[in-house]
Amino acid sequence: MAQTDSPILSKMDSTPIVVDPFNTDFDHRWSWTTLGKSLLNAAENHAKARRFGMMDLNDNHYTWVLSRLTIEMQQMPHVYERINVNTWIENIYRLFTNRNFSITAADGTPYGYARSVWAMIDYNTRQPAQLEQLEGEVFQPYLLPDEPCPIARQGRIRPLADSDYVGTHATVVSDIDMNGHVNSIKYVEHIMDLFPLDAYCNGRNLYRMEIAYMAESRYGDTLSFFRRQIDGDTYEVEVRKNGGQHGKDGEPVVRCLLCFR
Amino acid sequence: MAQTDSPILSKMDSTPIVVDPFNTDFDHRWSWTTLGKSLLNAAENHAKARRFGMMDLNDNHYTWVLSRLTIEMQQMPHVYERINVNTWIENIYRLFTNRNFSITAADGTPYGYARSVWAMIDYNTRQPAQLEQLEGEVFQPYLLPDEPCPIARQGRIRPLADSDYVGTHATVVSDIDMNGHVNSIKYVEHIMDLFPLDAYCNGRNLYRMEIAYMAESRYGDTLSFFRRQIDGDTYEVEVRKNGGQHGKDGEPVVRCLLCFR
Repeated sequence: MAQTDSPILSKMDSTPIVVDPFNTDFDHRWSWTTLGKSLLNAAENHAKARRFGMMDLNDNHYTWVLSRLTIEMQQMPHVYERINVNTWIENIYRLFTNRNFSITAADGTPYGYARSVWAMIDYNTRQPAQLEQLEGEVFQPYLLPDEPCPIARQGRIRPLADSDYVGTHATVVSDIDMNGHVNSIKYVEHIMDLFPLDAYCNGRNLYRMEIAYMAESRYGDTLSFFRRQIDGDTYEVEVRKNGGQHGKDGEPVVRCLLCFR
Repeated sequence: MAQTDSPILSKMDSTPIVVDPFNTDFDHRWSWTTLGKSLLNAAENHAKARRFGMMDLNDNHYTWVLSRLTIEMQQMPHVYERINVNTWIENIYRLFTNRNFSITAADGTPYGYARSVWAMIDYNTRQPAQLEQLEGEVFQPYLLPDEPCPIARQGRIRPLADSDYVGTHATVVSDIDMNGHVNSIKYVEHIMDLFPLDAYCNGRNLYRMEIAYMAESRYGDTLSFFRRQIDGDTYEVEVRKNGGQHGKDGEPVVRCLLCFR
């Protein structure tokens, strides 16, 4: 790990963002995929500025792995609005760290919040690193446990049944990010694409998404998608890789809960 | 059209952009799709600031339609680099306007250039507007015909044969932008996804792309893709909508030339 001989930065980073016209959805609002990428970019930039970004860790054979992501938006900002994506580390545990986010209007009014859980792994052994042993070194000055993040933590998302199968996607070049894996937010895009345009229209909005990243998939893997309606407004999705026809016996890579209203 | 009672802005806009880690491809370089969206965002923001953006035009039942886009990159910027996307109007003709772009490093060194051709249509009648009749009103103060854009103009891209068929894509929610059409850059993503990861690896790079947008497609349309290798490094792609099995007799919506090296 890098030594903290640099001045201590503030605990929270705030990234100003303009909702650009080609980063919106059909409804003239910020797209969920741009939102998702903006959260991950803010997280990585926050970590990098404090010397525990992916590139810093790579020097020591470690990398961050996103384990859970929960996003809840009261409202999506409109095209041309100026917003801020704010991020801070809520806490650190033996094997995980919780990083939270708020998405705010220029005047500070919250549009929504997000919670994420990350592990650090040794990418040679694929074993998790013991974060608490590193904590005093780099993380401790930046913990902000009392900053409010007033959305529920992620619940357990149950496995889906083979009969919930809805479709297959053979991974393509645009799925792959700089870690060589299917990008965390590309899953969000594929999952949202399981629903018809109607699901997002006529006053109906996706407002909460819980995503559990369970395993990595790579270029060449075939992903199969399973979807179950919990009630009129809530759906569970499972993504499996490879396996047999219609994803039978495939390995679960992502489970997701989507809440509409 | 809006009246030009506001002060005249500079002819060129320069947008600073950081190559954020989750906007890169597997090679740690800025992704072509983020590049493409950044060009279109810069174009619209440049137009909007000068009162001929899409929203300004919408008030008068007009909108901009992208007709041609040619991008040539000497090199793609690396993750974390600070770059600028610069855009200006080269010229205006009866039915079209040419808008150019440069993508430069912080010290001004060019990474690449782009050329685009836009028409303005009346979205009630779908007829093109006579730009020269509007020209004195709004465009004339902003023309910059002598600014260098040292890449070749787009050539004619020939129709492809039915036997060049390579695949089909049923349009999904994430394809659709705020105009209700398949987003111009989503075609780029789907076209790049026709090639295996190998095509972009081992020192092999896509460096030039010419895209002709011929018709619009919408949610519910089925796109079929045709690809032909011109020589070892150059490919033509055609996208058709609907039509019969394997896109036979489908309407051409996009033709594209891709140059690797």
